[in-house]
Amino acid sequence: MVTEPLKGAKFVVIGGGTGSFTLLSGLKHYVRDITALVNMADDGGSTGQLRDELGVLPPGDIRQCLVALSDTPKIRDLFNYRFEEGSLAGHAFGNLFLTALEKMTGDFSEAVELAGEVLHITGRVEPVTTTSVTLCAEGIDGADIRGEYEIGHTVLAEHPKVWLEPEAKANPAAVQAIKDADLVVIAPGNLYGSLAPALVVPGIAKALRETKARCVYVANLVTKPGPTQHYKVHDFADEIERFAGQKFLDAVIYNTDHPSEALMKKYAHEGEYAVEVDVEENKKRQWLARGLPILAHTAVEQGSKSDPLAATRSLIRHNPDIIARQLMRLYFV
Amino acid sequence: MVTEPLKGAKFVVIGGGTGSFTLLSGLKHYVRDITALVNMADDGGSTGQLRDELGVLPPGDIRQCLVALSDTPKIRDLFNYRFEEGSLAGHAFGNLFLTALEKMTGDFSEAVELAGEVLHITGRVEPVTTTSVTLCAEGIDGADIRGEYEIGHTVLAEHPKVWLEPEAKANPAAVQAIKDADLVVIAPGNLYGSLAPALVVPGIAKALRETKARCVYVANLVTKPGPTQHYKVHDFADEIERFAGQKFLDAVIYNTDHPSEALMKKYAHEGEYAVEVDVEENKKRQWLARGLPILAHTAVEQGSKSDPLAATRSLIRHNPDIIARQLMRLYFV
Repeated sequence: MVTEPLKGAKFVVIGGGTGSFTLLSGLKHYVRDITALVNMADDGGSTGQLRDELGVLPPGDIRQCLVALSDTPKIRDLFNYRFEEGSLAGHAFGNLFLTALEKMTGDFSEAVELAGEVLHITGRVEPVTTTSVTLCAEGIDGADIRGEYEIGHTVLAEHPKVWLEPEAKANPAAVQAIKDADLVVIAPGNLYGSLAPALVVPGIAKALRETKARCVYVANLVTKPGPTQHYKVHDFADEIERFAGQKFLDAVIYNTDHPSEALMKKYAHEGEYAVEVDVEENKKRQWLARGLPILAHTAVEQGSKSDPLAATRSLIRHNPDIIARQLMRLYFV
Repeated sequence: MVTEPLKGAKFVVIGGGTGSFTLLSGLKHYVRDITALVNMADDGGSTGQLRDELGVLPPGDIRQCLVALSDTPKIRDLFNYRFEEGSLAGHAFGNLFLTALEKMTGDFSEAVELAGEVLHITGRVEPVTTTSVTLCAEGIDGADIRGEYEIGHTVLAEHPKVWLEPEAKANPAAVQAIKDADLVVIAPGNLYGSLAPALVVPGIAKALRETKARCVYVANLVTKPGPTQHYKVHDFADEIERFAGQKFLDAVIYNTDHPSEALMKKYAHEGEYAVEVDVEENKKRQWLARGLPILAHTAVEQGSKSDPLAATRSLIRHNPDIIARQLMRLYFV
């Protein structure tokens, strides 16, 4: 751990859920200028209810990224606090915070910025778009599957077409962050539900093709049932480049470590398996493949009830500090 | 307006609703060390629903006092923002903030303190008690009326008995604030629904009898239908002292200004009339009576949507700055 985060280096992390949370939690100790770009496709749970009832943009993934970048433990915990009883049951407080601010100001980006001030965050969080969009994907029978929640619970076609309706206008601040970046990281995450809806936004894809930044994908650790069930590291990377419409990756960091057998068994029960590596296939790609032991074997951050990583010993997760140090090495290449 | 609030002077304002809001909004420009003591009897609207569903202490009046003392316009507005649609309709955001924090920390006082930090408040806000109480009063037929909302909508006995169930334990921080104060102000407010439940808490009443502070009541401007319908200034003051169990007031500030006829007509329609003054009766009391033109005739604070005073031209309200300057004069006597 360094004592002082680096000034001047500009990092961008693209994704949304737990993968972004992990990367940002680690990186904030090393780099001051981080921009988290978040997809706007989420429509499940508390987030889905707020979208339905109040017509706001989805706050859930934004909240997670804000919390990851925050250095105020109590407000962090408050943002992740979920009401358990009554008519508020299920709502994460931070979702209500962002929703109230968006309704009040009429401006989601301003709401996110103000929440960032209250949470004393390092860096910034930006939605990839402020268009209210529905994620759509091609089902196995060719039918359109609509909505991120539905897509996560339906069998999709192989290499499915993925798009947003209506077409999303990229958030200019997100585009600018990619253009100005030194390092762009594609966070591990749900390929069709979380990464695709960030990457298929036309302005985002264009910025990724044009940026001078080194672009890195931190590969997923486990497969999901459905089209990615037998995906290897290079398959994930190929799909990511397909979404962006161009080969733009300079490096892929993948895991060579082994989770415990008990943990693998638990995941297999859900139809989830460790992502395999095909070294020969990797060599055929333009990107540098970097295999490393990057699993978290103990709870890596303590003291915060709000921290999804606190449950790390019972989940297959990246070690945020190891990943952050590897990303710093790529920055300093 | 002074340029720098006074250090060292210790003011306490006791009450809860709009009256406290008005006094605190003015005083914060003149005094740094203000403690707002808030009754815990509110059980209507958003506050009542949160008490019922989640078993928390009432956040509504605490929120108003926090907002009055805040100097961050956007977070102020956010705290007073009310959801208008869906299952959140009617909830003020600040109420949800205090509720989530109380549920998370298990400590209402800590929740209020943290909210004060987020709002950058001058001074402090303290509940008079952290016992979960029900306000009770004697109805006109001698029956017990239970609950602040019910009491506000039922005809009470003349000089009704008012009590809390279970008996409230005074918040030690509130008691200490009264003991340490130089000036204690009883804010204008609903006599039985808002002032009584603060003053009948045994430890609060005892502290008021024992404090060396000068004690001032800023008299109500209008009567309500029911037992206070024909109350004059001295009747309000007498009742306040009855609640506290002792004559403790050193001064009463009352209004000599006249609201417009149109405004009086509007209030009369609701059975509300300007509080009258009986100079001879006032002379019989131990307190100094100070009659002054203290009405707000124009909106006195601008720019904040959350400010109840913004509607001042169409309501009979105190002018916060004039009241604050009069209180400073009493401090400097």
